[in-house]
Amino acid sequence: MTESVIRPVPVTAERFAQYGDVIHASTAAKAAMNDARFERFHDLAKIDVESAGGRTAISIARCKAATTFPHRFDMVERHPLGSQAFIPLSPFSFIVVVAPAGEAVDPADLRAFVTNGRQGINYHRGVWHMPMIAMEAGQEFLIVDRLPARDNCEEFILGDPITLEEP
Amino acid sequence: MTESVIRPVPVTAERFAQYGDVIHASTAAKAAMNDARFERFHDLAKIDVESAGGRTAISIARCKAATTFPHRFDMVERHPLGSQAFIPLSPFSFIVVVAPAGEAVDPADLRAFVTNGRQGINYHRGVWHMPMIAMEAGQEFLIVDRLPARDNCEEFILGDPITLEEP
Repeated sequence: MTESVIRPVPVTAERFAQYGDVIHASTAAKAAMNDARFERFHDLAKIDVESAGGRTAISIARCKAATTFPHRFDMVERHPLGSQAFIPLSPFSFIVVVAPAGEAVDPADLRAFVTNGRQGINYHRGVWHMPMIAMEAGQEFLIVDRLPARDNCEEFILGDPITLEEP
Repeated sequence: MTESVIRPVPVTAERFAQYGDVIHASTAAKAAMNDARFERFHDLAKIDVESAGGRTAISIARCKAATTFPHRFDMVERHPLGSQAFIPLSPFSFIVVVAPAGEAVDPADLRAFVTNGRQGINYHRGVWHMPMIAMEAGQEFLIVDRLPARDNCEEFILGDPITLEEP
């Protein structure tokens, strides 16, 4: 067997467009709000949760076991009924690995991205992704996704494990 | 005229229940997620945006002018068509002033709350609130609210200004 190795590259809205949204204070999305006290960066993610009676939920995920590199994984997951956003609740970088929506995953299609510490990401419905990892225990993400959770997580086992290298 | 003065008290889920949700990693809301790597604090806010064709939107608000105390204001607003959540994107405290949903605001009903730095808040639909303030320029909130924005902001002018004191 040949082990696949992938190394994250910095995420940008353009690079991530086929997988989802990068949630950040982009000057492209400025809008007025509340007199002169605030700048509002507007409508940064496509929240897609309403199919089959879904609703938006807000949750918090706190890392209790930091991931170290190289990190090996052999499974990706997708949420067929809804989008899923992860936004750091303090400035820190994190890594995602994605593959396009579809019935199966070609390991050659996996792409790894690292955020700049001020970005969140929103996986579009059905996009395959590595289960979430974080690099320090205690780091917290806000999650905006769909409830109910039933029938909304599918796993795909990769034939050979993938090695994710440090960015 | 008699000027009203209010001083914020620490927010708790119980104190805030009639106005909305406190979004924090409450042990009451723990759920399983992603093996043993994360704790998930689940379904922390009632997102109520679907009336009249609304959808959930994610935005970021960045403070460009810090508010100092005492802070005087003479207007509150409400969003008749949807809830609105503010979650700090780094640990900082902020202050909200609220009054119960209803056609008019009795200034005697205004209540001020201060967060502990790790909490967000979600105004329920129709709850009156002071326009957002922050205590340092550069502080950023994630906003989870309803789009489209049309017909979803009403203002109420208070007869006498309110003075908000430092917590």
